[in-house]
Amino acid sequence: MNKNLNKYIIKPDPNNELLTEEVTGTNHNKEPVRISVTVERPLTLFLNGQEIVTMMTICDYPEYLAVGYLLNQNMIGEHEVISDIEFHADIETIVVRTNSTTNFEEKLKKKTLTSGCAQGTVFGDVMEKFDKKRLPKNASLKTSWLYKVMKSINTVPSLYLSAGAIHGCVLCKEDNALIYMEDVGRHNAVDKIAGYMFQENISSSNKYFYTTGRLTSEMVIKTVQMGIPILVSRSGFTAWGVALAREVGLTLIGRARGNRFIALAGESRIVFDADSSEIDGDSSAKKESVR
Amino acid sequence: MNKNLNKYIIKPDPNNELLTEEVTGTNHNKEPVRISVTVERPLTLFLNGQEIVTMMTICDYPEYLAVGYLLNQNMIGEHEVISDIEFHADIETIVVRTNSTTNFEEKLKKKTLTSGCAQGTVFGDVMEKFDKKRLPKNASLKTSWLYKVMKSINTVPSLYLSAGAIHGCVLCKEDNALIYMEDVGRHNAVDKIAGYMFQENISSSNKYFYTTGRLTSEMVIKTVQMGIPILVSRSGFTAWGVALAREVGLTLIGRARGNRFIALAGESRIVFDADSSEIDGDSSAKKESVR
Repeated sequence: MNKNLNKYIIKPDPNNELLTEEVTGTNHNKEPVRISVTVERPLTLFLNGQEIVTMMTICDYPEYLAVGYLLNQNMIGEHEVISDIEFHADIETIVVRTNSTTNFEEKLKKKTLTSGCAQGTVFGDVMEKFDKKRLPKNASLKTSWLYKVMKSINTVPSLYLSAGAIHGCVLCKEDNALIYMEDVGRHNAVDKIAGYMFQENISSSNKYFYTTGRLTSEMVIKTVQMGIPILVSRSGFTAWGVALAREVGLTLIGRARGNRFIALAGESRIVFDADSSEIDGDSSAKKESVR
Repeated sequence: MNKNLNKYIIKPDPNNELLTEEVTGTNHNKEPVRISVTVERPLTLFLNGQEIVTMMTICDYPEYLAVGYLLNQNMIGEHEVISDIEFHADIETIVVRTNSTTNFEEKLKKKTLTSGCAQGTVFGDVMEKFDKKRLPKNASLKTSWLYKVMKSINTVPSLYLSAGAIHGCVLCKEDNALIYMEDVGRHNAVDKIAGYMFQENISSSNKYFYTTGRLTSEMVIKTVQMGIPILVSRSGFTAWGVALAREVGLTLIGRARGNRFIALAGESRIVFDADSSEIDGDSSAKKESVR
């Protein structure tokens, strides 16, 4: 057993019977097969009296997901006081209540007649806030920490290993993975971590973020909004993701597997202390087929 | 050269300089590296005077993307007459105009005061329409067709092979891949195919659909909305995707690689005519790392 597994504050719970289902089917040789598949459930989010969105989620942490979504969409601010959260499993609904009317509700009232969904407005707001964000310069990532953390993430029991078709995000500090969330959508896994950090008052400046998903603009923006200075992925990059990371000084590491990676922004935070030839190969590669 | 490559009506264009960028970075050995990454651009969609959404896309087929998005969200119906589509590259905006006010605009007017974004409403509408959908029972898929098509998809030059971090969807008929679209988001690739089929009046009942993405409820719903009876993916399943496929009688095939696959719904449409032991392995497996 890997010794650092017990440092997780939250880790995947593949034995939770609510999160997977056994189904039978037919394989390429016309033989019956039985496999485990991940569940997904709709969850409709209200902010006070306002219906915001219906998300598809494994629904293991609906409260963190709801708060993280609102934060990452700039629908509530980091100083917002959340007075109540009500999750109604039977009607697949969650209601987040704040002490006062939020900025988003004010903005929506003004925009409603001309643009209804106001998605473009949200997008504009997100970019404006992004431009003002400053990330801590003195944070660092040792490659020895990264290799140890990746090995732990790839070996700790997870829905990914047992059922596949799921994304994972992990909040890490030094050589420890702390919060490992999974969900059918990459953005949900990120939002659940953002919600956790907000609700539990976790600082971001000395952490780094690992994701199984691609390093798109959305992923870079969310990481920066959360104030995390370093983002690592086993997957690849998009051009705008790289451009945004460079603009704001986020350390962006992609294609991280076993002892290999490529950094395309903020390389100065990386301390190359590990001998990469000593590191094991990627033990999870065999399962990549079902991601 | 694979002989069936020339049957594509639309295929990826990895040589289009607008779709990728060369960037320099640092690898795990602290050596400089130069890689190609996929672009993504924001595109804000208007339906008549109504702002609908801002999408992130490689923006190779904005018109097909816009029409397909509106169709798949049930914001326009299959008998809607589109009078005009204006794409303004400079302001990253596309406007779709219809001859009359759409159902969606009518609905939004009523909903605006209580629910603003109306995402839950859209979701309800989509599910209602899904329940009424009937797929052709007499469609079939020979495994020999599937193996030939998958080999073609995995070897034809694509952004996936040259830059990674991208999803692909392919509309196929018998042993030919016809329309192969790629985009940074899986849903965009699907929507571009839906838009193409609508604009070019392509029938769906004798086609099948291949995707690199996971077989989630969203993917199943979109395929059914497009009237395509068979959905194949190299990736895995979610439980609700399987349940929906079984409910509506969609043939659902996942984890399709080389000569292997698992079917979890609608198996009766599959004709097992190929000797699976004769098929080549998955030549694209080496690139999976950057998906």
